[in-house]
Amino acid sequence: MTTITTTDPRTASTVDTGIEATSDSEVATLAMAAAASFGELRRHSRGWRAGLLRAVAAGLESRRDELVSVAEGETGLSAARLGTELTRTIFQLNLFADAVIEGGYLEAIIDHAGDTPMGPGPDVRRMLVPIGPVAVFGSSNFPFAFSVPGGDTASALAAGNPVIVKAHSSHPITSRAAFDAMHAAATAYGAPDGTLSIVYGQHAGATLVADSRVAAVGFTGSLSTGRILLDIIERRERPIPFYGELSSLNPLIVTAGAIEARGDAIADGLFVSFTASAGQLCTKPGIAFIPRGADELIETLVARATDAPAQPLLNERIFNAFGEIRQRLVTEGRARVLVEPQVGMGGFTLTPGILEIDAADLRASTTEEAFGPLIVIVRYTRLGEVSSALRTIPDSLTATVHSESSEREEITTLVEELQDASGRVVFNGFPTGVRVSWGQHHGGPWPATNSAHTSVGVTAIRRFLRPLAWQDAPEALLPAELRDSFTAVPRRVDGVLKLAIGAS
Amino acid sequence: MTTITTTDPRTASTVDTGIEATSDSEVATLAMAAAASFGELRRHSRGWRAGLLRAVAAGLESRRDELVSVAEGETGLSAARLGTELTRTIFQLNLFADAVIEGGYLEAIIDHAGDTPMGPGPDVRRMLVPIGPVAVFGSSNFPFAFSVPGGDTASALAAGNPVIVKAHSSHPITSRAAFDAMHAAATAYGAPDGTLSIVYGQHAGATLVADSRVAAVGFTGSLSTGRILLDIIERRERPIPFYGELSSLNPLIVTAGAIEARGDAIADGLFVSFTASAGQLCTKPGIAFIPRGADELIETLVARATDAPAQPLLNERIFNAFGEIRQRLVTEGRARVLVEPQVGMGGFTLTPGILEIDAADLRASTTEEAFGPLIVIVRYTRLGEVSSALRTIPDSLTATVHSESSEREEITTLVEELQDASGRVVFNGFPTGVRVSWGQHHGGPWPATNSAHTSVGVTAIRRFLRPLAWQDAPEALLPAELRDSFTAVPRRVDGVLKLAIGAS
Repeated sequence: MTTITTTDPRTASTVDTGIEATSDSEVATLAMAAAASFGELRRHSRGWRAGLLRAVAAGLESRRDELVSVAEGETGLSAARLGTELTRTIFQLNLFADAVIEGGYLEAIIDHAGDTPMGPGPDVRRMLVPIGPVAVFGSSNFPFAFSVPGGDTASALAAGNPVIVKAHSSHPITSRAAFDAMHAAATAYGAPDGTLSIVYGQHAGATLVADSRVAAVGFTGSLSTGRILLDIIERRERPIPFYGELSSLNPLIVTAGAIEARGDAIADGLFVSFTASAGQLCTKPGIAFIPRGADELIETLVARATDAPAQPLLNERIFNAFGEIRQRLVTEGRARVLVEPQVGMGGFTLTPGILEIDAADLRASTTEEAFGPLIVIVRYTRLGEVSSALRTIPDSLTATVHSESSEREEITTLVEELQDASGRVVFNGFPTGVRVSWGQHHGGPWPATNSAHTSVGVTAIRRFLRPLAWQDAPEALLPAELRDSFTAVPRRVDGVLKLAIGAS
Repeated sequence: MTTITTTDPRTASTVDTGIEATSDSEVATLAMAAAASFGELRRHSRGWRAGLLRAVAAGLESRRDELVSVAEGETGLSAARLGTELTRTIFQLNLFADAVIEGGYLEAIIDHAGDTPMGPGPDVRRMLVPIGPVAVFGSSNFPFAFSVPGGDTASALAAGNPVIVKAHSSHPITSRAAFDAMHAAATAYGAPDGTLSIVYGQHAGATLVADSRVAAVGFTGSLSTGRILLDIIERRERPIPFYGELSSLNPLIVTAGAIEARGDAIADGLFVSFTASAGQLCTKPGIAFIPRGADELIETLVARATDAPAQPLLNERIFNAFGEIRQRLVTEGRARVLVEPQVGMGGFTLTPGILEIDAADLRASTTEEAFGPLIVIVRYTRLGEVSSALRTIPDSLTATVHSESSEREEITTLVEELQDASGRVVFNGFPTGVRVSWGQHHGGPWPATNSAHTSVGVTAIRRFLRPLAWQDAPEALLPAELRDSFTAVPRRVDGVLKLAIGAS
């Protein structure tokens, strides 16, 4: 038996967790239990399912102190940051509960029988139904919001699917603690066995993705691990959707007008945005276009980075990769070093680093994502240079522009380019601190994600549903939401959208 | 230069079309023009785009006689059937125009800035935007509705994308004629160059799928060709979505009660459903479960099949594959021959065939799809046998059950199984004759399609869109539909769905 270890990144001390890696036969047993629970889960109402999400949220809340404390030891993130993240995670579960009750996510459509130019048409009714057991691979950098109790789990459960999570190797104890809290709450609520389960170890994760009973995979992590899992999926007999949030450089552009109007505020915001959580955020601005001449902003950034204390990175792999990529940006990308990151006193700790390059010199080798507290400042004179340089940057989750309203005309083309190259365009703000809401979109063109999906916001539920149609079905065999007499969810009836009437 | 030939399947006579296969450099030029047109297309309003769809529909209508006549010669389908198909194709374009005007497909969501449990949240607005040039591979069996002017083209255009169609080798002249009608109408309407283009030849199709400017592929055809295109996509640097409608056996189950109540009507309907268009429909019931004892229904089917005239299959490949698969069902699948198909007087013509097997003997080798006028009758005694046998059948676009209301309880489990194994469950009817409407779903679990999508109905537009979010965007830089003052499309505002107010 392999046992799982965990490391405190603040000290690099490793301890045995006592958790055993999940064997292939255990993975198969869990997948079978998940598949068995699916039948029962589907028979429950939306009201029941919203209750399950709320119970799970309350279960996490009831163990807040323990969860934050365990996560602090495994991730090196601050208790304050982890507390906010747990609040967000609980809020997210409750928001999905609201969405399940509201019912618009079902996309219910009723076309009554009637004449068509091709003759009489049958009665056709359609809505979205759950797809089956979902495997969730959480991220290293959000031990709650994008891990065991995170958005993938919440949206898959909300859709009506059982979930099998793969514990992240960087925080196995946090994973287990969060799982235990959720599992206990789900069991007390009456959820069937198999609704929620967890596997440990890389091998178990690969076995899970290959399992014929798994119907979809949600993944937040690196492009390289994402590719490994995609390869497994491509070898499956029955292909399944893989929703991967993979990599993002998140370009940020500051115009000359914005510098003049509020250069200091931008410098402060930018510093916080690229160094918060030691720069380990999917939406960290990794590259910022700053006009030549805006030396004061650069000086502020340099001063703040130089004075900043070392922060722990999440694990040794990230710490080492950060150093290697930063080095490549200098040697191969020819970036100038403005601030050299300093290794801290213990563990995998580092101070922030700043590199600089001219827009004309930007090329593929300067646009590698360094996961950690690093920013590449690109100096430019005309916005046309920015447009050219942007073509060398892989598409991202987000793109940000700071400008003044007097520059509206000049930035129109740039904004169109940023829309094409990202999933969210941010104006006069910062891409970090992703709001969890109905309309949020956290996804972007490849390689930000591998499909046009979001892993944050209510529409994330859409990933774990599939359409199903009923033709001339007897009323009794239709789902409640598609019966004529039911009006408590929004529906499109004979082409006309109708709001919900009455309680759901 | 390779020139394209075409064959009249009624006579097997082949003629040179004079059309040259599109070269790699021509494909690249067309893809570049499509990409260039995308920028201009996006700047047009939804009203403009609805007008484009209607203009294209009118362009096809204006050449109805020519189109039907050309298609008759290349497909062997009857003029009546082709006329109905063209009507459906035109209806479909106009229905998408209605949907574009209605605007619900944009899934517009506005979350105003406000307090959240994690602190102040920014203003986030999200809607769906077009993805870019779409490559469309039409099918052999629907020269209009699933080909050049078909649902993939209509939905991709409706979404705001340029379209590059690959002419089907089985009907190149029809493809060209339909393209010419659409292209002339689009040009007269003022659509930019590159909005619509066409390529000829298998090699050109492969080049198109590999082209970096192509953003998605719509495909209707065989599993084997689908796999070839998927392999090309997996080798691309940037993955793109592939929406394939691939293969479907469409099981149909008749209960004892239904036989007793209306066995004759079911026999008539079933015969028409599996032989219409020479059985070359994606939703043809290829396998029907009939209770032991229902010999009268079988006798009727046998009599009608024996008396039926030979009909031409679409091409030599389908004709040959049909014979080979039918043979395998007999030799390897051990099916009994009730009616042997007879080869007709000329061309690729055949009369219908009927095979029979006991439910307990059904296995993978008996469940291969024979594209053409063939049905496998599966005899059963208890519905439990049907459930077991269904597990050997690949998932399908549709599943059908004929039963009486007195049997409601007995069929509940069966209906659940059919829901899991298909995209549309049909009650007391037949799966062929797919209604084009808002709620239609034409898709199903693998291998019916390779993703949870539909290629018929208004929601087919969703395939060619991606979500995009704007954070704290100045009003002037938002799409019209996301501005506060705009109310002419349905939107979700701060979590609450609002109907459209005022004209769009």
